Amino acid sequence: MTGTARSATGAVPGSVEVLVDRARAGDPRAVGRLITLVENGDPRLPELAAALAPYTGKAQVIGLTGAPGVGKSTTTSALVGAFRAAGHRVGVLAVDPSSPFSGGAVLGDRVRMQEHATDPGVYIRSMSNRGHLGGLAAATPQAVRVLDGAGCDVILVETVGVGQAEVDVASLADTTLVLLAPGMGDAIQAVKAGILEIGDVFVINKADREGADAAYHDIQGMIGLAARAPGEWRPRVVRTVASRQEGIDELVAAIDKHRQWLTTNDQLQQRRRQRAAAEVEAIVLAALRQRIADRGGLDQLAAEVVAGQQDPYTAARSILAELDRR
Amino acid sequence: MTGTARSATGAVPGSVEVLVDRARAGDPRAVGRLITLVENGDPRLPELAAALAPYTGKAQVIGLTGAPGVGKSTTTSALVGAFRAAGHRVGVLAVDPSSPFSGGAVLGDRVRMQEHATDPGVYIRSMSNRGHLGGLAAATPQAVRVLDGAGCDVILVETVGVGQAEVDVASLADTTLVLLAPGMGDAIQAVKAGILEIGDVFVINKADREGADAAYHDIQGMIGLAARAPGEWRPRVVRTVASRQEGIDELVAAIDKHRQWLTTNDQLQQRRRQRAAAEVEAIVLAALRQRIADRGGLDQLAAEVVAGQQDPYTAARSILAELDRR
Repeated sequence: MTGTARSATGAVPGSVEVLVDRARAGDPRAVGRLITLVENGDPRLPELAAALAPYTGKAQVIGLTGAPGVGKSTTTSALVGAFRAAGHRVGVLAVDPSSPFSGGAVLGDRVRMQEHATDPGVYIRSMSNRGHLGGLAAATPQAVRVLDGAGCDVILVETVGVGQAEVDVASLADTTLVLLAPGMGDAIQAVKAGILEIGDVFVINKADREGADAAYHDIQGMIGLAARAPGEWRPRVVRTVASRQEGIDELVAAIDKHRQWLTTNDQLQQRRRQRAAAEVEAIVLAALRQRIADRGGLDQLAAEVVAGQQDPYTAARSILAELDRR
Repeated sequence: MTGTARSATGAVPGSVEVLVDRARAGDPRAVGRLITLVENGDPRLPELAAALAPYTGKAQVIGLTGAPGVGKSTTTSALVGAFRAAGHRVGVLAVDPSSPFSGGAVLGDRVRMQEHATDPGVYIRSMSNRGHLGGLAAATPQAVRVLDGAGCDVILVETVGVGQAEVDVASLADTTLVLLAPGMGDAIQAVKAGILEIGDVFVINKADREGADAAYHDIQGMIGLAARAPGEWRPRVVRTVASRQEGIDELVAAIDKHRQWLTTNDQLQQRRRQRAAAEVEAIVLAALRQRIADRGGLDQLAAEVVAGQQDPYTAARSILAELDRR
């Protein structure tokens, strides 16, 4: 209840309700502890979720994704500046799903966000995959919930990687920004990575470099080719040089346009319901995995599968039967 | 039973037992149909798994991963040539997890493997994420099982991407190869991507390019720094120019060395048991997700979570209670 540092076991001291109250009062250390609790898969998570529930659902959640080197941190930092200038409280979650074993996010890129480190209206946090059941996919929406409950008006979720990570960010965010940089394969790369489908706004960053116009027109062309129902959102494409703040106003305008479209078409509630459904399902599945682990016997079944005495489906059926007998 | 083409609905004709017999007799079309069945999440999968079980467990499974552009397909093709020269039957699964929505793998790279297309001792198949429950993570081990049951001595599983995809490949393979190319960020990039922990053999491909020696020494240095128990495998680093077959013999020798280590240390059985356990668990979880979907009501709970009337843990508990009442 009184500790100000994390204990040697990684446990987070302080009662959850007190921490939530302090987080809502703007104490960044309380916010940090609550996110640590989420990241650790702490047993008090249900208590935390219940304490936060009445205060959540207000924040605008913006996802930001792209390959390494496109300038995600610089763009995030520029957006933080713009939202701060508009008077918003801003939370940043820098999610690094690519480090599943090491237990620590690579923080180098975060340095670029240091300009906001002393601003009490900005909360910045890196999250890596601690490897507990459910992992980052389960922890990230709950961390968003903490920042939301703590009163952030805008939450930027930045993630690196290709593939599943982007999909997760897209399912988490109200608006998903996909960053590209000229000369990185651009449009073709976007198609290969499956990110053309998830971007609400595409950002050609480093737009002062050679190939920026080609990348812009390629993406515009691909967006034009995509099948789209009447009234469906047509992704915007914005050119930025985030390191010099160029194009950031246009980017914020595109985000606002998307937000307007979401609210006037009931899409915001629909996206958020899908997000909540995925979150609830992830919690259920984590609990079920825990039951399977507690039950034991999976190793024995696996050994029989390896020996060809049993097939995986028959083994799975016997586990399901056992879970049902419970 | 007689159809030679897939029906319009995507259903695979032919009884599973007949297809398994034909696959075991070396009919590539039968192998192809069985993998399509796996990829589609066909209801006959349990029947297929049971039919295959007695014939599996013989193949050597080699995973091959790395960022786009490092030369994965070229290296795979060179390895196929080497294993064919040694008299082995070879299966190749080119897994593309980065295309979750489009329903089709990007096949361009596969063209480089065409030199083996007419060799009856080689079976090559691309797999993409069809989006059904469980997805590629569930389908890939079963596709490996098909190739194993069909008599492939060596199965190469090639995957693109950064992050979770590599981890999945590592958990699937007896031996995991991580490909790097000079000038792509190299060692630092490997650490960021979390792949230093999963590689049994590191391949510096395009080793004739500038920066290859630096990359080689960087990786060697990082391997040297990693904590390792006595008797634990120390990853090998091999330099190749796969497009000219250079270094491929050394790569095969490193793979053999790792295989020897696996067998003399009972690691092979342990890895395979872990793999089988993950496979069984994935089937159980897919079945449970189906139950949750069949039950309905998740949407209503999600709407209550969005409205702040319920928290996700309480919602999850009510689903678990419902599943238990079943």
